[in-house]
Amino acid sequence: MIDPDRHLNIGSLIFDGIDQIDLTGPFEVLARVPNSTYRLYSRDGGMIRDLKGLRISPDAAIADAPQLDVLHIPGGFGQEALMEDETVLSWIRAQAAGAHSVFSVCTGALVCGAAGLLKGRRATTHWASFHLLPYFGAIPVDERVVIDGDWVFAAGVTAGIDGALRLVAELRGDAAAQAIQLYMVYAPEPPFDAGTPASAPPEIYEAMRDSVAAVTAQREATAKRVQARLGLG
Amino acid sequence: MIDPDRHLNIGSLIFDGIDQIDLTGPFEVLARVPNSTYRLYSRDGGMIRDLKGLRISPDAAIADAPQLDVLHIPGGFGQEALMEDETVLSWIRAQAAGAHSVFSVCTGALVCGAAGLLKGRRATTHWASFHLLPYFGAIPVDERVVIDGDWVFAAGVTAGIDGALRLVAELRGDAAAQAIQLYMVYAPEPPFDAGTPASAPPEIYEAMRDSVAAVTAQREATAKRVQARLGLG
Repeated sequence: MIDPDRHLNIGSLIFDGIDQIDLTGPFEVLARVPNSTYRLYSRDGGMIRDLKGLRISPDAAIADAPQLDVLHIPGGFGQEALMEDETVLSWIRAQAAGAHSVFSVCTGALVCGAAGLLKGRRATTHWASFHLLPYFGAIPVDERVVIDGDWVFAAGVTAGIDGALRLVAELRGDAAAQAIQLYMVYAPEPPFDAGTPASAPPEIYEAMRDSVAAVTAQREATAKRVQARLGLG
Repeated sequence: MIDPDRHLNIGSLIFDGIDQIDLTGPFEVLARVPNSTYRLYSRDGGMIRDLKGLRISPDAAIADAPQLDVLHIPGGFGQEALMEDETVLSWIRAQAAGAHSVFSVCTGALVCGAAGLLKGRRATTHWASFHLLPYFGAIPVDERVVIDGDWVFAAGVTAGIDGALRLVAELRGDAAAQAIQLYMVYAPEPPFDAGTPASAPPEIYEAMRDSVAAVTAQREATAKRVQARLGLG
């Protein structure tokens, strides 16, 4: 836990092609952390569209963010465009260096990897990109939420809700996280046991894997270039 | 199930003071329904802010919406401003009359009630407003998701994810819902058993109940006026 009297600046990076629930799941939690300010930042301060078209406006451009205490990096197919964007990567590096905690959701982990921040770190990401983590020097851990020191990694998509609640428990204690969980009425009842590759009907898993194969291949090519750039090859 | 070849127009009403995850949880599901178009509508077509400040832009004003096949009404404290807004209520009534399904999340049920659409209907809403359902002629059912004919009601906040997946199973079959659930990696692991009044630590529940007491009292006063207007008193 952090001193409850210490005000926390919490910020999320948002970008075109984000998977909106990587942001909005954690938003519901992070916006309710006691004694904190929570803001959204995009590269240039402009509105972004999620990969299905949800239009979200940030509070400011990344250049106008204060040093954050908690840095949240969501994922989504649009993460590819950030992987070699030095303006964004150097902002992430500088913020992470001064932050108390970094919180990666889904393929946000790949962006953190491209910033060179995953070397030797236990990490997770979406199942379709899990095999890419070693390119960034990370140690893949196949759990829904992975906590490595002051880093919290949530696996795919809705895992961001679980990860955000774990993060709040780390920052402000269990009672603060439980109060937010009650507010959110987070007592999920998934209608099917189909949320992971292992539990989904095999034909549904195979169709989903095939449908993202081209994106996964592109991500792998990018990961290899990053690996070379970081001298990890 | 609906004929898979029938294209579905799906729409969500958004408004100032919405609880964003009442929208964005279902968004992740509804944006992926096979053979459908999904759009967001606000009263006047302008950007809205959720109750914690998330800024979301709609696709159009409600007056520009086509007849929807699926109408989604989220909740949040801002629902109060809609309870006696005849422009919005008559739009909801007209859409519901022509829709195949209506999907209410959280205190969106109160707005549907104010539109006179809950008479004799089995329904649910957020636990803090559950006792208000009879003012609208509804039959309260204390379940996370309640299906009454072509209506789907999700209880509080994150229940909208479960409700949306149930809705998709109704509309497009179990396999379609399972594929979306796998995409979303929706295999939740809540860190605490604190998501309902019954499971949360009592002192956390009592503090939360007290913190929303003023809003609940206001909602009750509004519900009584609606009851009189609808001739249900």
